[in-house]
Amino acid sequence: MRKLFIVFWAICIVNISTSGQSSHPNLVITGEDAANIKVHLGSVPLFDKSLQLAKDFVESAMNSRIDVPYPKDPGGGYTHERHKQNYNEMYNAGILYSVTGDERYAVFIKSMLDEYAELYPQLGRHPQGKKQTPGRMFWQSLNETVWLLHTIQAYDCIYDWLSESDRNNYEQNIFIPMSEFFINECTHEFDLIHNHGTWIVAAVGMAGYVIGNDDYVEMALHGSKKDGKSGFIAQLDNLFSPDGYYTEGGYYVRYALWPFFIFAEVIHNNQPELEIYNYRDQILKKALYSALQVTYTDGTFIPINDALKEKTWLSPELIFATNFVYAHYGQDRQLLSIVKLHDQVSLTGPGMMAARDLSDDKPVPEFNWKSVEYTDGPEGNMGGVGILRYGTPEDQETLLMKYGSHGLSHGHFDKLTFCFYDQAREIIQDYGAARFLNVEQKFGGRYLEENNTYAKQTVAHNTVVVDQKSQFSGIRSESEKYHAYRYCFNSDKPDFQYVSAKEDKAYPGVNQHRTMILVNDDKLYRPVVIDVYRINSGISHEYDLPFYYMGHFIYSNFRYDAYTKQRSLMGDDNGYQHLWKEAMGKPDSTSQLTWWNGKRFYSLTINTSRTDEIYFTRIGGSDPEFNLRNEPGFIVRKRDKNTVFVSVLEPHGIFDPTLEFTKDSYSTFKDIIVLSSDEKYTAVNIKGNNNINWIITIANADADPGSQHELSAADKILKWTGPVAVHK
Amino acid sequence: MRKLFIVFWAICIVNISTSGQSSHPNLVITGEDAANIKVHLGSVPLFDKSLQLAKDFVESAMNSRIDVPYPKDPGGGYTHERHKQNYNEMYNAGILYSVTGDERYAVFIKSMLDEYAELYPQLGRHPQGKKQTPGRMFWQSLNETVWLLHTIQAYDCIYDWLSESDRNNYEQNIFIPMSEFFINECTHEFDLIHNHGTWIVAAVGMAGYVIGNDDYVEMALHGSKKDGKSGFIAQLDNLFSPDGYYTEGGYYVRYALWPFFIFAEVIHNNQPELEIYNYRDQILKKALYSALQVTYTDGTFIPINDALKEKTWLSPELIFATNFVYAHYGQDRQLLSIVKLHDQVSLTGPGMMAARDLSDDKPVPEFNWKSVEYTDGPEGNMGGVGILRYGTPEDQETLLMKYGSHGLSHGHFDKLTFCFYDQAREIIQDYGAARFLNVEQKFGGRYLEENNTYAKQTVAHNTVVVDQKSQFSGIRSESEKYHAYRYCFNSDKPDFQYVSAKEDKAYPGVNQHRTMILVNDDKLYRPVVIDVYRINSGISHEYDLPFYYMGHFIYSNFRYDAYTKQRSLMGDDNGYQHLWKEAMGKPDSTSQLTWWNGKRFYSLTINTSRTDEIYFTRIGGSDPEFNLRNEPGFIVRKRDKNTVFVSVLEPHGIFDPTLEFTKDSYSTFKDIIVLSSDEKYTAVNIKGNNNINWIITIANADADPGSQHELSAADKILKWTGPVAVHK
Repeated sequence: MRKLFIVFWAICIVNISTSGQSSHPNLVITGEDAANIKVHLGSVPLFDKSLQLAKDFVESAMNSRIDVPYPKDPGGGYTHERHKQNYNEMYNAGILYSVTGDERYAVFIKSMLDEYAELYPQLGRHPQGKKQTPGRMFWQSLNETVWLLHTIQAYDCIYDWLSESDRNNYEQNIFIPMSEFFINECTHEFDLIHNHGTWIVAAVGMAGYVIGNDDYVEMALHGSKKDGKSGFIAQLDNLFSPDGYYTEGGYYVRYALWPFFIFAEVIHNNQPELEIYNYRDQILKKALYSALQVTYTDGTFIPINDALKEKTWLSPELIFATNFVYAHYGQDRQLLSIVKLHDQVSLTGPGMMAARDLSDDKPVPEFNWKSVEYTDGPEGNMGGVGILRYGTPEDQETLLMKYGSHGLSHGHFDKLTFCFYDQAREIIQDYGAARFLNVEQKFGGRYLEENNTYAKQTVAHNTVVVDQKSQFSGIRSESEKYHAYRYCFNSDKPDFQYVSAKEDKAYPGVNQHRTMILVNDDKLYRPVVIDVYRINSGISHEYDLPFYYMGHFIYSNFRYDAYTKQRSLMGDDNGYQHLWKEAMGKPDSTSQLTWWNGKRFYSLTINTSRTDEIYFTRIGGSDPEFNLRNEPGFIVRKRDKNTVFVSVLEPHGIFDPTLEFTKDSYSTFKDIIVLSSDEKYTAVNIKGNNNINWIITIANADADPGSQHELSAADKILKWTGPVAVHK
Repeated sequence: MRKLFIVFWAICIVNISTSGQSSHPNLVITGEDAANIKVHLGSVPLFDKSLQLAKDFVESAMNSRIDVPYPKDPGGGYTHERHKQNYNEMYNAGILYSVTGDERYAVFIKSMLDEYAELYPQLGRHPQGKKQTPGRMFWQSLNETVWLLHTIQAYDCIYDWLSESDRNNYEQNIFIPMSEFFINECTHEFDLIHNHGTWIVAAVGMAGYVIGNDDYVEMALHGSKKDGKSGFIAQLDNLFSPDGYYTEGGYYVRYALWPFFIFAEVIHNNQPELEIYNYRDQILKKALYSALQVTYTDGTFIPINDALKEKTWLSPELIFATNFVYAHYGQDRQLLSIVKLHDQVSLTGPGMMAARDLSDDKPVPEFNWKSVEYTDGPEGNMGGVGILRYGTPEDQETLLMKYGSHGLSHGHFDKLTFCFYDQAREIIQDYGAARFLNVEQKFGGRYLEENNTYAKQTVAHNTVVVDQKSQFSGIRSESEKYHAYRYCFNSDKPDFQYVSAKEDKAYPGVNQHRTMILVNDDKLYRPVVIDVYRINSGISHEYDLPFYYMGHFIYSNFRYDAYTKQRSLMGDDNGYQHLWKEAMGKPDSTSQLTWWNGKRFYSLTINTSRTDEIYFTRIGGSDPEFNLRNEPGFIVRKRDKNTVFVSVLEPHGIFDPTLEFTKDSYSTFKDIIVLSSDEKYTAVNIKGNNNINWIITIANADADPGSQHELSAADKILKWTGPVAVHK
């Protein structure tokens, strides 16, 4: 077998001077930290292991030919990967030089910088440059800022070792022109309130600290105009809600936190008077915890907006954040459980602290996933996401409902959507993004055309589509003007939790109100999700509610026509062109669909009548390059002015192929009847086996948890307190 | 949450008398074993845990109402599952009575037997009875024999405790009429050389030992006519090859080994003079080891023939076999690694021995999966299966090629098919069976119609289909007359292993010869599979070679027309009606297809020309009940008299979403040219990057490993020894 390319992440700038602040290196850690690290080397296994990784990596690089190729390929291609590899190599060599003082590392960095100083001035726009944000060395400027962020640290490590003419050469031919390029030619990105903006200001700011350019630092902190409307501080103000929720969602916060924490640590070390870790009521701490909460129990980020499902909190970007938050905010040992999973620490003072504490004898508690709501928007008044959970991490039901703002350029038209997990598996999925990260054959590893034409469209989500059009007509600038509204969230009782939100801008004249309730009962195997989705409009519309179930279809209680010999599409546009129509059902009354996944069955029971239709769909139409995953869904279609979709999503039974044992493969539920629904109240009757006969009542216009309500329904006077109740 | 039905498996009959052989119980273990168990109770954790499981299970049963319902439901339905539950409850109660002497257990069994003695005489054919093999209590007689096998042991345990009138009642109303039913009304099954035959003779034979009917025992051993043409001994002679390979394949041997070992242990204890464990050169030992070898490294049985992919060697049926082989054949500690995974032992002497040895301090080696060939047929001359492996169990390439006999009623028309694993995943899959075991909604949990119309058909496999027809025209009785021929197998060198076989009866006038070679090289990430599939016929045919790849399609090097708006079927019958035609490609020269699965890419490079076609297919057409898994495939179509399909299946590159790192997503291979192919030799040139320029030579008519060959090809004189060579 061929020797594999060794790749890994490790990081820090270690200051080997032992007294006071030397001028170089001066980025991520202090002299005291460095001295402390040296004292403990050889006695802290996880730190030593992390350092050894850096040594092996750089040793392998030093035994190979240096290659600084002329930029040619897009993401995933050789020149792209080579330049990424190069900055990682320089960067780690910088660390090792600082720790060991071995000049071989410095020579290696110098040799590579010599070539870059030769190459960089020759470069114009990258030949495969991304439309709006081309780099010079990379197809997008984003990768170039990451290159600078790493390389400036390598340079800083060998700064004192270099001759003044070398320093001049690198600063004049690389660091200054690159910084100027970012400030002057990428001004839009530089002043963007967006994770790309964070990368670029962090890189330029760090260059400023190293080469002593206060102007760069000032612009990094307060924007190219130094007016505070952009830059790092404005990003901290605007990209996170007061809870720390990052408006792009879990997948991107992981990436965004990397430059946030790197640059925060650099500021902390260089301008401690700014108290960056206390800024905005410790927003950086909140940012990490909210990122960790927006994962399923296998550490996978719940894939709202553009997101790749392979991403977990094991991502090396989170190593820094976890180490730094552990060190700066009171050593929460829960975080050590994640450090343990990372199996690597940052080569920094906080990294050493985390590694040492992991070696002590005290217990390391598992991360505590909990039911939680996060608000969205800088003021926390732009809707949010609600997460309901039930059960231990080993087998947990998790529901996420999304009702925030658009989520910047990676946002989807998916207000009031949800996704649901159980058995450490997706049960009702969010498609995530249509992209094969770094796979050159797939459009250079970029977002695929189908990401726009399908994955972002409303019909790709588990939320209502009106008249087969996407929310806000699929226009991002429109969607960014508005947000959904949180109505209520309550997770006080594990057996009865709910989240509820409203939306009235996505479709003109259409008011939507969705309430999702997690209800446990002795008559059930596990809690069920009751979904009450009320829609009102002055005129009649076609309302489609998709459910992207994961698993194998088992059974429906209604007849359907299956298109077994010819298949055609669900529609022509707005994402419908990507759905094959597999069958159409005409239900008589309450409909039921059952599928199998893993060791359980799942049933969706939903109120329907003879005027409704249920489609069986499969993703993958209009997809000549086979870019989409061919996964199934149901679409429930109603036509009306006002309607209520009420469904019960029920995990049930046991499928045990090892013991050849199957139990309760049929749903417990039988019938769902909307008793009444008006501006004030919605009342729903849900019936099932084991004498289940529940009435759900929702106060539609008063979310006050203390309000008392009374409603006459099903020959009963129902009384309750608060916005949502189940009467059993 | 509702309390789950507790189900598990534990087994034995414990003889609590401490001196010599008492007449009851007298089935699975001896008095010495029982005494030995009692001595060690409380000191052997795994045994104690296994016993506790039985106690909890029976305690829960004794706290519930006994229900012996009138039979009504098919597999998976309530009455079916209830009667299964009942025999498990009686059976475990029997063990516990024997061990503890606690009369509550005996009373419980008696109460249930009283009800069965009432019910059984009333029963005619089961209302949902399976066409040819109906039972009375169950829809198929098979389940009924399993009921008897368990219940007779429970009865045996409390035999001495019961009054004579009780015994009379049960024997006259249950055991004798049931045994007679099996012998007289299920004679066909009783005399069948098939796993169903083993169950029935084991059950009747055990009844014979308990109630003292030597006739039953004699018939169990030698067939209903006592002529030795059927019965247990004939089954041992005919169902296994001399290597122990079971003709139905891995999935069914798991099930078959259960009654084989139970009954063997009973015979061993009752008629030691038969030396059943030494019979046929220790065929029972070989049977277990070959079953274990026909798994992938996660313990999953490679799903040839009718097989459910969920089945692993964790199946409780293998607990007995593993324990008994461990005890009777010299305590091979490899087997303890499997006992450890079972996390349960049989409540028998051998179970105690395995549990005790697992508690000692000696190392427990991992099971040693190896490259191995098994012959098929009682004489070992009916072809076989060849398994090539490379790498450690953590990440092993495994290829299985199948060239044996039909495999009885569960056989598929799939001679010369193969499947391939890597990364503990299926890469080229065998579909297995179309069945949802015990899921009532899916045809009562039975084999589905699509099992015949798709899963068994040739086009459902990775082997050539001639003129869109299945092998032997899909007629089992024809297929059973013939078998494929092993040509050669060699796994002496890990870096160069091969298996080769021929077939000349599946399609009249068509001779097929497939050779699959696992080749490793320093220029590759991992070994590749080179597949040389030669077909000759006097007249021109259409040859289709499917590859059911698992993963997401990434790239092809040829243009294709994708059917993006309308989809239709690949054909009308022979399984083609179940394949959607997704795209058709017209290659220019060598074709290449790349897909992604897990952390790697896989490419298939295959010799094609402009007259060939490549179809992209998806399973799921003509499937109104959505019974099939909608998985993709490629079909390479050639039309000719004589042709050779040559392909390279190559795992390559790295897809690492955690480190956001992708490497070598393109195949190493470029070109495949058949240099020559005739009756004597086939020579193929394979070219690729890194200066790969290999010539493969195969001697087509001389498999002697010592034969020396010489061939002029590509301007070279090639010399080699043995049937297959790679010239690099």
